[in-house]
Amino acid sequence: MVSITSFAQQDLWGGSKIVSPELKGDNTVTFRLLAPNAQEVKITGNWMPASAAMIKGEKGIWSYTTSVLPSDLYSYAFIVDGMKCSDPGNVYLIRDVATVTNVFIVGGGIGDLFKVNKVAHGTVTRRWYDSPANKMNRRITIYTPPGYETSKQKYPVLYLLHGMGGDEEAWIALGRTTQILDNLIAQGKAKPMIVVMSNGNVVQEAAPGESSLGFYTPTMQLPNTMDGKMEETFPEVIKFIESNYRAVADKSGRAIAGLSMGGFHSLHISRYYPNTFDYIGLFSAAIKPDNKVTSKVYKDIDGTLNTQIKNGYKLYWIAIGKTDFLYKDVAEYRAKLDKMGMKYIYRESEGGHTWTNWRVYLSEFAPLLFK
Amino acid sequence: MVSITSFAQQDLWGGSKIVSPELKGDNTVTFRLLAPNAQEVKITGNWMPASAAMIKGEKGIWSYTTSVLPSDLYSYAFIVDGMKCSDPGNVYLIRDVATVTNVFIVGGGIGDLFKVNKVAHGTVTRRWYDSPANKMNRRITIYTPPGYETSKQKYPVLYLLHGMGGDEEAWIALGRTTQILDNLIAQGKAKPMIVVMSNGNVVQEAAPGESSLGFYTPTMQLPNTMDGKMEETFPEVIKFIESNYRAVADKSGRAIAGLSMGGFHSLHISRYYPNTFDYIGLFSAAIKPDNKVTSKVYKDIDGTLNTQIKNGYKLYWIAIGKTDFLYKDVAEYRAKLDKMGMKYIYRESEGGHTWTNWRVYLSEFAPLLFK
Repeated sequence: MVSITSFAQQDLWGGSKIVSPELKGDNTVTFRLLAPNAQEVKITGNWMPASAAMIKGEKGIWSYTTSVLPSDLYSYAFIVDGMKCSDPGNVYLIRDVATVTNVFIVGGGIGDLFKVNKVAHGTVTRRWYDSPANKMNRRITIYTPPGYETSKQKYPVLYLLHGMGGDEEAWIALGRTTQILDNLIAQGKAKPMIVVMSNGNVVQEAAPGESSLGFYTPTMQLPNTMDGKMEETFPEVIKFIESNYRAVADKSGRAIAGLSMGGFHSLHISRYYPNTFDYIGLFSAAIKPDNKVTSKVYKDIDGTLNTQIKNGYKLYWIAIGKTDFLYKDVAEYRAKLDKMGMKYIYRESEGGHTWTNWRVYLSEFAPLLFK
Repeated sequence: MVSITSFAQQDLWGGSKIVSPELKGDNTVTFRLLAPNAQEVKITGNWMPASAAMIKGEKGIWSYTTSVLPSDLYSYAFIVDGMKCSDPGNVYLIRDVATVTNVFIVGGGIGDLFKVNKVAHGTVTRRWYDSPANKMNRRITIYTPPGYETSKQKYPVLYLLHGMGGDEEAWIALGRTTQILDNLIAQGKAKPMIVVMSNGNVVQEAAPGESSLGFYTPTMQLPNTMDGKMEETFPEVIKFIESNYRAVADKSGRAIAGLSMGGFHSLHISRYYPNTFDYIGLFSAAIKPDNKVTSKVYKDIDGTLNTQIKNGYKLYWIAIGKTDFLYKDVAEYRAKLDKMGMKYIYRESEGGHTWTNWRVYLSEFAPLLFK
C-alpha cells in the first residue's frame, strides 16, 4: 500500500478540502487553515522557538511552510486572532497534562522509530491491580513484546515511569513506547521485554478521564508525588507484574527508568531497594527530595547508594539536555556519584525538558538492557 | 474523593482560568471560550438541532448555558467566526471517522453507565492477529471482564462490530464499551463476557494512525467493506479468540452485534454460518447487499435464513431509531422475517443513526446475552 502522508481538512462547512499538514518529499511541511474572517493567524510548533505568521491566500485559506525539518515527531497548534486552536485537518492529537496538541511525524531518521511499521507488533494492555497500600484499585499500562502470548519463556521487565502531570497513559501516548519497542525489537536492537507503565501519582486511581473522578482538567499539582509514598508502595507493582506475567523475577531481569519526577522515583526506588534492579535510567531526572519531606525513603541516601554500589548493577544511565532546568542538579548528582565511585554512563543531549528528548532517551536506553 | 465536574481552560495565553464546560447540579451546562477578537461565536452540540449563539461577556469571554439536559454523553464544538474549533478548556475528545469532538457526560441516568465508576474493572487489550485470508497482521481490541485473569472459567464472547468509517477503536472510544460492560456486570445486569472489537474494513491493518499507513485523514470510503470479503474472513477472528482466550467455543457462548455496516455484517455472518451464534444484534443495521456485488455470501439469503431458523437461536434483536435513514430497509426486513416466521425482538427508539442510540442499544442488548 502507498504511504499516505497528507491530511484532508474536513468538509463540514462548505469549503473545499484543505490538506493540512502536507508532508513533502523534501521534509518541509505545509500547514493550511480555512479562516476567511480571521485578522491574524499564527502557528506555534515545537520545532521553532516562537510562533510564525501564516499568510492569507485565496478563499480565506491561511498557510505556512516550514524549512526542512529533521526526522522527528512534532507537535503544533494554530493561533487565530489570539485564540489557540487545533488543526481541523489533522485528527491526530496527544494530550500532555492539560494541553491537547496536533502531532505529525517526519520520517527518514529517528522519526521512523516512532512510526507504526510493517513489523511484528507487541500487545498493549490496560488493566487494574489491587493496591492495598494506596487503598484502591489502580490502572496500569503494560506492553508485552511480539510473541509473548504464544511463547513459554520468561521476559525481562522495564518499569517506565512518567513525570509530574503524567500518568499511565503518558509513555504510551507521548512516548510512543509501543512503536519504539516494536521497531527496536524488529531490528534486533533491543531484547524482547515487558514494559510496565504504572501511574506514579499515588493519589490517583487512573489517568484523568479513566478514573471515577470523571472528566476533569488534569493538573500537575497532585499531593504525595515526591514525598516517599510512591517509592514505598512500588513493590506492589513489581509483585503484581511478577505474579501475573511470565517475568524474569530477579535483579538481572529488572530495569527501572523514568523522566523528570519519574527519574527521581527511579533514582530513589533503585537505591532504597538496592538489590532489585540491574538497570537504572534517569531521564532529565529530578534529584533532590524536598527539605520538608521526612520520609524514611530519603533518610540515608549516601548509605543506600553505597549499598547499591556494593551489591552491584549493570547499568546506571543518566541523560539530560544541555538547556534543561534540572541540568545543574544532575551535574551535582554526577559529581557526588564520581566522589563515591559509583559508575554511570552519561548522555548529554541538545535541548531541554521535552518529550523530544525522552523519546530519544528511551530509544537509546532500551537497547542497553538485558544484554 | 470529591467528584470533579468542572474543567479549567488552560492559562497559556495570559488569561485567567476559564472553566468550560461547567456541569451544574441542575444538569444545565455552561460553556465558555476566551476569544476577545472574535466577531461571532456559536456552539454546536448533539443535544440541539442547530448551533446556538454564544454571548460575549467581560474580558472577551463568550458563554452559553444549556437548558436542563437528560443524562447522557454529549459532544460539541465551538464555531468562531465561521471556523469550527475544540474547547481549549476540555481535554476530552473522541474521534469519529475524520472528526474530533469534545465530549462530556451528564450523570444521574443512562450517562452513569458511560462513566468510570468505583466498580471492578475489566481489561482492555490491543493486540494483533495473523490474517492469512487478508494477507496481513491485523489489530484487534479485546475487553475481558473483571476477574478473567485470575479465574479458570470459560467466558462467552460478544463480537461487536463497528460501522462504515469505524475501526477497532470505535466501540471502545465512541461506544464506551469498557464502561458499559464494567457497570452492567457490577450491577449484576450482564453476565461477565469477553467483547471482541475487530476491524471490519478488510483492507485495513488497523485504525487510522495505528497502521503502517501512518497519520492520514480517515475516510468512510474504503473498498471491500460490504462485498462479502469481511464475512468470508470473519472465521479467522473467531478462531483467533477461541485459540487465545478462555472462550466458550460453541454457539451458546457466541453473540454477534454491530451498528450500521456492522449490523449488516452481523446479519450476514450469522446466517452464512448459521449454527455459530445464539445471539444476534442488529443496531441501525444496513440490510441489503449492493446489487452489483456477486459474493457467494449473499447468494441465498432466504435459504440461509431458513437454515438459521431450523438450527435455532436464542435472540435476534433488531433496534433502530424512528428517524434513521435506514428505517424503511429495516421495516422491510422485519416484514420479510415475519413472513418467514423468523422470530426477533424489535426495539424502536427515538432519534436516528447516532452513537447516542448505539450506546443505548449496547446497554440494552448486553443484559439479554448468555442467560
